[in-house]
Amino acid sequence: MNHLDLFGNIVRKRSFLCVGLDSEMEKIPSFLLKEKDPLFAFNKRIIDATHKYTVAYKPNIAFYECYGAKGWNSLEATVGYIREKYPDIFIIADAKRGDIGNTSRMYAKAFFENMPFDAITVAPYMGEDSVSPFLSFAEKWVVLLALTSNKGAGDFQYHSDERIRLYERVLTVSQNWGNINNIMYVVGATRAEMLKDIRKLVPDHFLLVPGVGAQGGSLEEVARYGMNSKCGHLVNSSRGIIFADSTEDFDKVAGEKAKEVQVEMERYLLERNLI
Amino acid sequence: MNHLDLFGNIVRKRSFLCVGLDSEMEKIPSFLLKEKDPLFAFNKRIIDATHKYTVAYKPNIAFYECYGAKGWNSLEATVGYIREKYPDIFIIADAKRGDIGNTSRMYAKAFFENMPFDAITVAPYMGEDSVSPFLSFAEKWVVLLALTSNKGAGDFQYHSDERIRLYERVLTVSQNWGNINNIMYVVGATRAEMLKDIRKLVPDHFLLVPGVGAQGGSLEEVARYGMNSKCGHLVNSSRGIIFADSTEDFDKVAGEKAKEVQVEMERYLLERNLI
Repeated sequence: MNHLDLFGNIVRKRSFLCVGLDSEMEKIPSFLLKEKDPLFAFNKRIIDATHKYTVAYKPNIAFYECYGAKGWNSLEATVGYIREKYPDIFIIADAKRGDIGNTSRMYAKAFFENMPFDAITVAPYMGEDSVSPFLSFAEKWVVLLALTSNKGAGDFQYHSDERIRLYERVLTVSQNWGNINNIMYVVGATRAEMLKDIRKLVPDHFLLVPGVGAQGGSLEEVARYGMNSKCGHLVNSSRGIIFADSTEDFDKVAGEKAKEVQVEMERYLLERNLI
Repeated sequence: MNHLDLFGNIVRKRSFLCVGLDSEMEKIPSFLLKEKDPLFAFNKRIIDATHKYTVAYKPNIAFYECYGAKGWNSLEATVGYIREKYPDIFIIADAKRGDIGNTSRMYAKAFFENMPFDAITVAPYMGEDSVSPFLSFAEKWVVLLALTSNKGAGDFQYHSDERIRLYERVLTVSQNWGNINNIMYVVGATRAEMLKDIRKLVPDHFLLVPGVGAQGGSLEEVARYGMNSKCGHLVNSSRGIIFADSTEDFDKVAGEKAKEVQVEMERYLLERNLI
């Protein structure tokens, strides 16, 4: 999928929503625990209820990995289900990987060959040769951490030489590693006004924006400062949608919450004349 | 295990060798492929042949994860085997994880609760709240990336304000997150003379030093500049030991290679009067 395909899906669905599948066993409705694969049972119903409002899903790998081989099976089942039933939807492995070349190649194999993910989040600390193995897969994407939305973002990401901060250097240097069809950036929403300056550095790249909702970012501000002529961002929501309800109707409620976000997104897309 | 226990093991074994279990299916002896679990069969024989010369093992998680649930089972079997048969040996998950708090907590659970690892490598980019969940486990360690040994280390790790480079800031700031009994640093050996300045920043912390051998670092220089009064470093070797031979005798040859390294390490420990 290239950036125009992604934009096409955004236009068609009138949404730039990414639903984060942070499917924590302790938080899914308890009646699902009797299922053979509770995480997959939960995800399946969430996906069926939200796919109409969503252009991307983002399973958070930690929440599967913490159950070992069993969790890995739930993850494979989930990604396989999305790919088969909703083939247009962009699937991001939120894995924050990144290691020396031969090791990154193995991670790429895990997520791009053995599972049909479209993209993987990667930490930039180890530099180009830790990222490029992921970029050598056709039609696959790296979502590189630039400015994250957590408190600890302040510890190193603003480290600044006389010209630029570290996250700005990540945005600048890494553009040479790939192109707008295979690199996207994580830019947190907690300081949405910073998106204005970030857009000067990466005018055409897609951004993956977490931190709206639970972490306090405003969707309106993100859209104001982050949107470009091809929309240019996916905004993630996890807990606010998938854990909105824990009754038998949890999926219906998740669908309603996703729809609320989609309706708001539609407004911003209309304001920019993108749909 | 605290840093004195680790030093005790180093003294007893006259070695500060960490063997990296980067057990790539394509590189293990082909006759093992008929085994039910080839990766574990390989690791088991490598471990039995090298444990006498080794104070730590470091499975590289990518090499297991790329086989999905099956690879995860091989990893669990490997770590379980080391813990049961050689309980003194320090086991490091080379995973390069690091994410927002609730996610890092799940990764910690995966490696510290569901598997008996002693330590995990963590990328610092997301700052304190991405690292501290790992530090909340008693007797467990974070091995934080500081200066890595790959080419891409130059892309961001040297980013420098008027006072310090990024990797120096990582070393300085992160000392407040834990102590010498739960934080260790990855410092690559490719520029061993830099260990001299790094030791001024972290005089007492253990370092995990990759890049000796295949990547060109010199063990002698590492020991000269990196060793402190409690030895203070583990030096990793992976391919040079585990893939030294691919015949029926691969484990015997791996043991010999490990012994060679141990004998050299013993010399440096003697020179410093640490044993």
